[in-house]
Amino acid sequence: MAGRDDGASTRIGSGAEPVAVICGGGRLPGEVIAAARDAGRRVVVIAIKGEADPSIDAFAPTWLGFGQIGKLSDLLMRENCRDLVMIGGITKRPEMREIIGDLGTMRRLPRIIAALAGGDDSLLTKVIRLFEDDGFRVIGAHRIAPSLLALPGALVGAAPRGDVAADLALAAQAVAELGRLDIGQAAVSVGRRVIAVEGAEGTDAMLARCAELRRIRRVRGTGGVLVKCAKPGQDLRVDLPTIGPDTVAGCVEAGLSGIGIQAGRVLIAERARTEAAAREHGLFLFGLDRATATENAS
Amino acid sequence: MAGRDDGASTRIGSGAEPVAVICGGGRLPGEVIAAARDAGRRVVVIAIKGEADPSIDAFAPTWLGFGQIGKLSDLLMRENCRDLVMIGGITKRPEMREIIGDLGTMRRLPRIIAALAGGDDSLLTKVIRLFEDDGFRVIGAHRIAPSLLALPGALVGAAPRGDVAADLALAAQAVAELGRLDIGQAAVSVGRRVIAVEGAEGTDAMLARCAELRRIRRVRGTGGVLVKCAKPGQDLRVDLPTIGPDTVAGCVEAGLSGIGIQAGRVLIAERARTEAAAREHGLFLFGLDRATATENAS
Repeated sequence: MAGRDDGASTRIGSGAEPVAVICGGGRLPGEVIAAARDAGRRVVVIAIKGEADPSIDAFAPTWLGFGQIGKLSDLLMRENCRDLVMIGGITKRPEMREIIGDLGTMRRLPRIIAALAGGDDSLLTKVIRLFEDDGFRVIGAHRIAPSLLALPGALVGAAPRGDVAADLALAAQAVAELGRLDIGQAAVSVGRRVIAVEGAEGTDAMLARCAELRRIRRVRGTGGVLVKCAKPGQDLRVDLPTIGPDTVAGCVEAGLSGIGIQAGRVLIAERARTEAAAREHGLFLFGLDRATATENAS
Repeated sequence: MAGRDDGASTRIGSGAEPVAVICGGGRLPGEVIAAARDAGRRVVVIAIKGEADPSIDAFAPTWLGFGQIGKLSDLLMRENCRDLVMIGGITKRPEMREIIGDLGTMRRLPRIIAALAGGDDSLLTKVIRLFEDDGFRVIGAHRIAPSLLALPGALVGAAPRGDVAADLALAAQAVAELGRLDIGQAAVSVGRRVIAVEGAEGTDAMLARCAELRRIRRVRGTGGVLVKCAKPGQDLRVDLPTIGPDTVAGCVEAGLSGIGIQAGRVLIAERARTEAAAREHGLFLFGLDRATATENAS
């Protein structure tokens, strides 16, 4: 799709041009900033008031509220930032009195209201358009922090074989179909049967459901795998599929034997902790290449 | 598929030949018996001890335990029943001491044990094979009680239009894809977005999830629809998709505006109560013809 970050391997160089990272909640923004700086990129950090984690202070951020878009714009101009990354969760829908902020915000207000009036899915896409109208370029976090992306092949444990590989292929096929319909990013297969597919509830809730299905013995047999992939055409600038320590914990609760993630399109948050947790509980972690993840989907 | 009841419209005639209905739990077995008798069919009723509802006594059943397969076989021969319907829930996995019953059971024990040792999904199919080996023909409940099946078109309320029709088409497409992968029978679409797809948890649990997604405002907007269809190639003799008063209640809780069900392949339990509940809460009930339910799936 035009204007979309297609996740292709072309990367924004680690040149002199700085990148602004607008941080929502969680640990991920800090990791992205650290990875980008490790890769030699200069990063201007903006923390969203009431959303960003206090630990972000370690990166000397400028804290801004939802109503300070004018101030944000000025800051980005001054810092010569053309590239912009938005990362981390936004849990609150800003209230109108928070939005009606500075003059720069006021000027954009009609477009902001129009954006907020739309459905959830398109909200961030509309926010991106607001920035792009002002001459900025919004890019995916994976473009400045590629070291956080899953690589193809065995990441933790041995490469799956036999029944496990069959579950992996089955779940990947389900995810590919779901993705094609723009429904979800994840599925769980146990004993060569897909038992759960992700909708709006998200991966953690789906894993909790699998644990419950096991508990009430609605699902029998041992093992099984979680597969998580980006949707085809998914806008990785606003919604980068991610796994982390919670995902591993959820898989352990559900009695699964491992996780398959799409290489190059799924981000591993708190990578060291995530991999250590997988190792501790004997879960494998495997990077599916694009062909594996979609080969059965056509 | 060979030997499978394909749900085609050829119906077992209401001739002199009797049919045996083996009743598990719930109200559905009684309804099936009543509908079959209304259609002029003679019905021999067998109630499974510990599973069938006490209300089944109204149909003068023979109560049999899991270990009385020999007795069952004798009864069916004596009554000249060649056709057999199995309907209603089985909540308990019979214990070995219950299975080791009469001589007829003992003779079949090796095959029964082999069947019980397999996965859940194939268990009933294996039970069917046991009966078929003995010369019986297992048929779907819908074949003797077609009046319980959904017809195409508006069943309660007006035919959906506009956004509602779009949600109906979207959910139907998701169900068709899920069905093709043998995953689930139902999906929910709200505001032209599929928010939940059914896996092993079943329709009621999926609807409860949708209500929760609404409650925590993870899903915004009003309305939305549930679609339920048989999987392509689904063995309707052992697993006939069904909706009932609970389905309507679940849709009300989830704030949905109606239900689309595949005509001719989904059974409406407690039809009068189900339709009255839909009417009372302003939900539509619509029978999707096969083309509608699968046209986008190929």
